[in-house]
Amino acid sequence: MGEFELIRRYFQRQGSAHPAVALGIGDDCALLQPASGAQLAISSDMLVEGRHFFADVDPATLGHKALAVNLSDLAACGARPLAFTLALALPQADQAWLAAFARGLFTLADAHDCQLIGGDTTRGPLNICITVFGEVPVVNGRSLALLRSGAQVGDELWISGTLGDARLALEALQDRRQLPPAVLQAARARLEQPTPRVALGLALRGIASAALDVSDGLLGDLGHILQASGCGACIDTSLAAPLLAAQGATLGEEERLALVLAGGDDYELLFTAPAAQGEAVLAAAREAGTPVTRIGRIETGPGLRLVDAQGRPVSGRYASFDHFA
Amino acid sequence: MGEFELIRRYFQRQGSAHPAVALGIGDDCALLQPASGAQLAISSDMLVEGRHFFADVDPATLGHKALAVNLSDLAACGARPLAFTLALALPQADQAWLAAFARGLFTLADAHDCQLIGGDTTRGPLNICITVFGEVPVVNGRSLALLRSGAQVGDELWISGTLGDARLALEALQDRRQLPPAVLQAARARLEQPTPRVALGLALRGIASAALDVSDGLLGDLGHILQASGCGACIDTSLAAPLLAAQGATLGEEERLALVLAGGDDYELLFTAPAAQGEAVLAAAREAGTPVTRIGRIETGPGLRLVDAQGRPVSGRYASFDHFA
Repeated sequence: MGEFELIRRYFQRQGSAHPAVALGIGDDCALLQPASGAQLAISSDMLVEGRHFFADVDPATLGHKALAVNLSDLAACGARPLAFTLALALPQADQAWLAAFARGLFTLADAHDCQLIGGDTTRGPLNICITVFGEVPVVNGRSLALLRSGAQVGDELWISGTLGDARLALEALQDRRQLPPAVLQAARARLEQPTPRVALGLALRGIASAALDVSDGLLGDLGHILQASGCGACIDTSLAAPLLAAQGATLGEEERLALVLAGGDDYELLFTAPAAQGEAVLAAAREAGTPVTRIGRIETGPGLRLVDAQGRPVSGRYASFDHFA
Repeated sequence: MGEFELIRRYFQRQGSAHPAVALGIGDDCALLQPASGAQLAISSDMLVEGRHFFADVDPATLGHKALAVNLSDLAACGARPLAFTLALALPQADQAWLAAFARGLFTLADAHDCQLIGGDTTRGPLNICITVFGEVPVVNGRSLALLRSGAQVGDELWISGTLGDARLALEALQDRRQLPPAVLQAARARLEQPTPRVALGLALRGIASAALDVSDGLLGDLGHILQASGCGACIDTSLAAPLLAAQGATLGEEERLALVLAGGDDYELLFTAPAAQGEAVLAAAREAGTPVTRIGRIETGPGLRLVDAQGRPVSGRYASFDHFA
């Protein structure tokens, strides 16, 4: 099977095109036509074997995750997915692997009406690089994109879904921790098939003041909001700790908190909103079908404080994930 | 040096932003705002060590080439470069390597006013994935993009610049061929620092009927135009053979022709234009400062014929490059 046959067989699909896609796979460039006046939100993520996934990972879940982490970036900006490119380095053209990878990829892509419009294939150590495109309206000259820089002192701090389960699964798969089979299975789904919070990101436009997606750990990623917005924050650990979904894992209190605050690979939306928007946040979450939890507040800062339910300081060092640290 | 410090030090630059870039590096997504009604041309290429470049390649030329092959795709569409994303897997954060890579990358980017707006860095086997964005105007509802599918019977077939030198250098660097040092140096520059024909692509809008960039070899890539346009072609090998720039390389006639017709890594524009546009093509080439040569003609087909100056058939099999064949 040659390069073009590989693309034709697994990645070039017939059927209706997204209206914003003027030209898809098959020429030197794809052509996108965003709605007049709209902004195009763009994000790119590269997944490497042994770094972002295990060599023996189910290729269908890998196809899902490679796109999910990119859609999660669109969600964090409040952008509506349009299309993506896929660049793929493969050690060999394994047909069963490719079929499963494509199935996982396109199942998620179709769920978000996000069309594959181009890319590249080459031989090499397994590497998956997806660049995703979404649309953000500009209303009266003002972009509706959710940025990291909009948090204001007094805003409330919110997080979607659950935290720490992906890290719990990772530690079990690395034999650093034992988990009951049912607990491992649920946690592993969170690691291997994260759910990009696209609907929530869209529903939060005009409500949230700042947002990002949590990929390196809650505290480290919150640091990006605080730095970009020039403020501090306080997190009530009694509100955050219950966010680990796993039940039945024997975990100490500190261990649980570390998973939640610094686990990584969560792909949940961390966002801020004015206190007066609390009801609007909850309505947006209901509309999106995604649970959200208020875990703290933006302060004058600098830096981040952790407190317990009584407002007493909680100590502990939580490192964020860094590929080169 | 951590991941964010690496990005800040080598890839995040101060200074004026491209007017189409509403938000660059530093948030979950970059935001692009193309001119109202314009199309965004998008292309993505992945370069892998040992496959697209040697492990000991000068990182400055690698930075150049990684962007050049993408700009070449924009050129082939007649798109004006706006911006690009860079995803980079690195075995280690080698500061001298990164500084040189960034220098080569940004020198070319600045020459085309093409801004780095985001991307990803991770540890892994060296892999460079760039996705590039350009703008194509739509006039009276008609896109000015140059596509592969527009060739018409009777159109003339043109190629920019020179062909085969990159392959000549590759064979010398692989010790499959000996070249005088000066010849190797010139050919190697073509292999390692190809010139994307952006100005020519822009000048050919409204003149060329079809275009693509030659990366896998002239004949193989011409096949894409013929397939997309549903026609055949005839190439006069006496016009094509002189396109090898290298002088002083001891080459047989067939060997020279094979380098020109099936060398690969040329990044020249192969395009068709109505015969009546011959003068306009030459004027566009002068405006762009890029030589062009007429090498044949589009026929009813099917397939491709090679003939000599007297119109007699020339035999020979020329394989195009395929990553998985």
